[in-house]
Amino acid sequence: MAILDFSSDTSAPAHPSILTRMQEINEGNLASYGGDSETVKLREKIEDVFETNEVFVWPTYSGTSANALALSLFCPSTGSILCHEEAHIQHDERGAPEFFTGGGKLSLLPGKDALIDESALNSAIDRIDRSFVHETPPHVLSLTNLTERGTVYEIDKIARYSNLAKKAGLSVHMDGARLSNALSTLGVTPAVATWKSGVDILTLGFTKSGALGCELIILFGSSCTKGTELLTRAKRSGHMPAKMRYLSAQANAMLSDGLWLKLANHANEMARNLSIELCKIDSVSLACPVQGNEVFAFIADDLAKQLWKQGVKFYRWLDGSYRFVCSWSTSQDSISEFSDLLNKLSCE
Amino acid sequence: MAILDFSSDTSAPAHPSILTRMQEINEGNLASYGGDSETVKLREKIEDVFETNEVFVWPTYSGTSANALALSLFCPSTGSILCHEEAHIQHDERGAPEFFTGGGKLSLLPGKDALIDESALNSAIDRIDRSFVHETPPHVLSLTNLTERGTVYEIDKIARYSNLAKKAGLSVHMDGARLSNALSTLGVTPAVATWKSGVDILTLGFTKSGALGCELIILFGSSCTKGTELLTRAKRSGHMPAKMRYLSAQANAMLSDGLWLKLANHANEMARNLSIELCKIDSVSLACPVQGNEVFAFIADDLAKQLWKQGVKFYRWLDGSYRFVCSWSTSQDSISEFSDLLNKLSCE
Amino acid sequence: MAILDFSSDTSAPAHPSILTRMQEINEGNLASYGGDSETVKLREKIEDVFETNEVFVWPTYSGTSANALALSLFCPSTGSILCHEEAHIQHDERGAPEFFTGGGKLSLLPGKDALIDESALNSAIDRIDRSFVHETPPHVLSLTNLTERGTVYEIDKIARYSNLAKKAGLSVHMDGARLSNALSTLGVTPAVATWKSGVDILTLGFTKSGALGCELIILFGSSCTKGTELLTRAKRSGHMPAKMRYLSAQANAMLSDGLWLKLANHANEMARNLSIELCKIDSVSLACPVQGNEVFAFIADDLAKQLWKQGVKFYRWLDGSYRFVCSWSTSQDSISEFSDLLNKLSCE
Amino acid sequence: MAILDFSSDTSAPAHPSILTRMQEINEGNLASYGGDSETVKLREKIEDVFETNEVFVWPTYSGTSANALALSLFCPSTGSILCHEEAHIQHDERGAPEFFTGGGKLSLLPGKDALIDESALNSAIDRIDRSFVHETPPHVLSLTNLTERGTVYEIDKIARYSNLAKKAGLSVHMDGARLSNALSTLGVTPAVATWKSGVDILTLGFTKSGALGCELIILFGSSCTKGTELLTRAKRSGHMPAKMRYLSAQANAMLSDGLWLKLANHANEMARNLSIELCKIDSVSLACPVQGNEVFAFIADDLAKQLWKQGVKFYRWLDGSYRFVCSWSTSQDSISEFSDLLNKLSCE
Repeated sequence: MAILDFSSDTSAPAHPSILTRMQEINEGNLASYGGDSETVKLREKIEDVFETNEVFVWPTYSGTSANALALSLFCPSTGSILCHEEAHIQHDERGAPEFFTGGGKLSLLPGKDALIDESALNSAIDRIDRSFVHETPPHVLSLTNLTERGTVYEIDKIARYSNLAKKAGLSVHMDGARLSNALSTLGVTPAVATWKSGVDILTLGFTKSGALGCELIILFGSSCTKGTELLTRAKRSGHMPAKMRYLSAQANAMLSDGLWLKLANHANEMARNLSIELCKIDSVSLACPVQGNEVFAFIADDLAKQLWKQGVKFYRWLDGSYRFVCSWSTSQDSISEFSDLLNKLSCE
Repeated sequence: MAILDFSSDTSAPAHPSILTRMQEINEGNLASYGGDSETVKLREKIEDVFETNEVFVWPTYSGTSANALALSLFCPSTGSILCHEEAHIQHDERGAPEFFTGGGKLSLLPGKDALIDESALNSAIDRIDRSFVHETPPHVLSLTNLTERGTVYEIDKIARYSNLAKKAGLSVHMDGARLSNALSTLGVTPAVATWKSGVDILTLGFTKSGALGCELIILFGSSCTKGTELLTRAKRSGHMPAKMRYLSAQANAMLSDGLWLKLANHANEMARNLSIELCKIDSVSLACPVQGNEVFAFIADDLAKQLWKQGVKFYRWLDGSYRFVCSWSTSQDSISEFSDLLNKLSCE
Repeated sequence: MAILDFSSDTSAPAHPSILTRMQEINEGNLASYGGDSETVKLREKIEDVFETNEVFVWPTYSGTSANALALSLFCPSTGSILCHEEAHIQHDERGAPEFFTGGGKLSLLPGKDALIDESALNSAIDRIDRSFVHETPPHVLSLTNLTERGTVYEIDKIARYSNLAKKAGLSVHMDGARLSNALSTLGVTPAVATWKSGVDILTLGFTKSGALGCELIILFGSSCTKGTELLTRAKRSGHMPAKMRYLSAQANAMLSDGLWLKLANHANEMARNLSIELCKIDSVSLACPVQGNEVFAFIADDLAKQLWKQGVKFYRWLDGSYRFVCSWSTSQDSISEFSDLLNKLSCE
Repeated sequence: MAILDFSSDTSAPAHPSILTRMQEINEGNLASYGGDSETVKLREKIEDVFETNEVFVWPTYSGTSANALALSLFCPSTGSILCHEEAHIQHDERGAPEFFTGGGKLSLLPGKDALIDESALNSAIDRIDRSFVHETPPHVLSLTNLTERGTVYEIDKIARYSNLAKKAGLSVHMDGARLSNALSTLGVTPAVATWKSGVDILTLGFTKSGALGCELIILFGSSCTKGTELLTRAKRSGHMPAKMRYLSAQANAMLSDGLWLKLANHANEMARNLSIELCKIDSVSLACPVQGNEVFAFIADDLAKQLWKQGVKFYRWLDGSYRFVCSWSTSQDSISEFSDLLNKLSCE
């Protein structure tokens, strides 16, 4: 029987190529703390994949540290960060942005399907008065793509939001923990989805896509001037591992031959298939469009309980819907078995 | 020709067993964020190796984060930490303890060979007046074993210092980034070198010993009550990686069949051999006793420059001596080649 | 002509009794940093006024520091504080609570007239899961009385909210920057409005009421165990002035013969009178009930501009209403003159 | 009988002129948070007294906040501050600089009589390597004048040290909690003792000199660009009191007709007289030169105990000497009475 674990893409193992690459570079002495040849190679790959050499990259092993370090470069301890009220940095990082910025605030914006509402963004930006010392003005706009609800920001929206933010003096951060899944759906290049649309700082996740623990902080264009401060802050927060080569090797494996995108294509396809199976059940409806590797669906609570009882793994969400996540390792077999089980249970 | 790299044990690759174990557990879905079976296994191994079940363990990927997280559990933001003035937490962690504690201070103590001087410790402890709100009283005593100078704290000294600290209400932290090297020299069990001698919190390093990036924070006895706070602080500082199994696998490989101690024995032996070769040169003298895998020696600056020119890697230290570090991967051949080169150069 | 300044109660001068008391104690040497006799007297007064000797008091010179210090005692750096989305600690303190807690968060709750909505509070409390390490659970409920909209929390609501909070392990903080104004309206004793209704920590403002700069942090009951930590945190944030006697003197003057309440009665009466005058104008309506010394009214923007032109001082609020604040020094004459001007302008 | 209280200049009352000025400006409504006319006047006075209009001033009510706010403008959270190992910011501020900088460090330098040793400063500056990310490089040099030992930095030493610091990219801070006492001894203008000798940021104390609680943060020259950040940081640390006029009034009183210098002259003279009386006793010797309002003397412990028994107030210092502090309110009578008592006790 296949594994029916749709709890999270973080439960999946690493793709074999990752460990193969780590084995390959496990030879001989190399400079530590990022001075090694594998990290040099990573820099070249990033320049290549993002089609620019005005770029700075630093790997860490968790998405929380990647986001928090990135944000702390652009939001002072007396400033704030505009983000969606369901953003990962708000809900799932235990105050890491506040900690890394030294007490900065998150300013929450509403919006359907975890996408920031444009008029809310507009009025938040209109309200900025940097000379009024009592309030905490925003310094960064943080967008999540793929969003926390598995939806995507269209490119023109990213460009429009970035433009708005920049006119008001804000930097633009993208939480790309599942960027590959968004790219797969959008069908655009990494460059177009990021710096060409105004993104200054990207946290690019590989862990959920298939690495064992690797997330990149990528600075674009004039943001690169913050590179040294990034190293400094990485060091003093314990995110400058001695043997950096093993982080860089993971990223290099993912970026070779488009592996990251191939794995995202597969995960997205599995999610689409799973959503199709779910929608065949009369009582089920989608909570939001399936545009990546996540499905949010309203299911009868009874049915959900029976699925859990049968060993299927997935979570209940705050709005009462249920979340199913597919990963690079989700097989079509598991989708089929899930479908069979679903049909059987809903017929009872 | 062998590698003549004595710059640091952090430049060495990982021992093959580490990657083998990571491969073995790279199968199927497992709970994320530390809820996996490999992490359960790690807990069992730690109980076994440290001969106690009053123990709590959390892995991170850098020594800086392990130390800073550990210290932040016991030193409030308005407190201080007693440590040697050459300690890693003071000199090499870019203010990480201050950051993680939220502004705590380090109180520096002198002492020969990077060992805290007993009378300095005594007077620092005598001076504590917790009711005097203007000063920043110590809450933790931090000992480093192996020290930053490659020397060891004898067990009775650890016990005596711990006792002094505890009577004054301080917790005792051990920075064990190279604990295995100290254990090899001391010839005692891990339990005796730590909690049986009064250590409350241990940061146990495997990276320098042969892992690819794994350091354990270990709480003993009543310190275990801080376990939940440790998880909380790990999360919000980005030190709760999603796929924890790969950190735990590294530790499990090191703790299997005493691998960590075997690798330390070898590294120590290489350092002893290297120091013997160095001492054969008339103009060379040791800066401190060789009790682990590090050699600090006074060498004529000219000779040092010639060695560098020949590609030998090692660092100059602040006191004018030179540091040579051996690792699990240092070969006897490299010591012999180094010796030949040394003799050749010093005869010229 | 009377001063038509309704911009804020912080623009008013100090009541003469305050400076008189400061003169009286400006004699001879006294112990510094809070060890003086005037501060001893303050402690006695607080015990008397709040009818308890399980109480701890510390004066500071700003409301922001009083709130932030108070909250930092009960909310750890990894925790959050439940408060109204319009609370002063959220909007007007430039991230002070985040700074003093070392990165804690504010969790915002909605509610009409700046009063926290009961069902929103209930569901926020229901959602708490302290074992879920990714989210930031609340540790404190902060209520503001008088609220930011000049409304009052009824005593039974305070008691009910406190009860809810405590059952869930939260401490209850009251931001009493204008507590005297609320007391005047509620007609209850200070004890009933605070600890007898479940308040653990009070920040009691005297600056807006008529002092020159004095706000008290008051810990009740078992919260008193945090007294030493409060001193410690006051010291390291610069809120332990050397010559404390002059802060204590201000509080002592306010608490003598019920001066604080008399001044609040007057300010509230002036606000009521002002609101009556405003409501006589057809186009004007109140934005919320007038229950203290503040009036929020919807006025035609044209009329507001004409009033400004005539030198009347008051602010436009975020919801489009206009705020008028009365203080101990607002005279009935100024209300009458304002009324005349208002009538004249609205007839044109 | 006169008061024989030499415990600290912080135990003294305020000079009558201070309260007189506060009375004078206690009239009518004024803009809050520093927008008032009395604060405008302060700015003019500072420009006048310091002979420059490239100057920015902000008052607070404690020396700790003035120092910590000032330092936090120039030392990032990943940087350090060079200061004397006996400096007030190290010993007496409970980690305030670490708190306000967000985790910055103090780098301690030795030196006789609480004056930083020049060669120690030189080697600390030589050692700076900003590209080495593991260490915490200094960003500020902090000098204390009058020092913690009542000694003065000569002008040429200030200029030389400032020059050294600036060449290495450091800003120069002066802790002038007792600057007036130093000025009185040096016989130079405030401008010469500060910005003309390279000081970028001054914390100028009036509390110890005779105010009731007022310390100025003064930025000179290009440092003024940090003015807005100073306001921001003052606000979020609770150091932007609503009714600022009463802080500014204190400073204005002190700066009128040279009152601050007159009071310092008197305090210094009393200290000189007291030291002369002490030195008449055979067994007494000075621990350091008397160059301000403080006397450090080695006295037989027995004699000290007898003095205490007779009600004389003064403290024992860490080096075994005893500290006597005079203030603006110390009378010649009290010196004479002390002398009589001293003679009587030492003859017994």
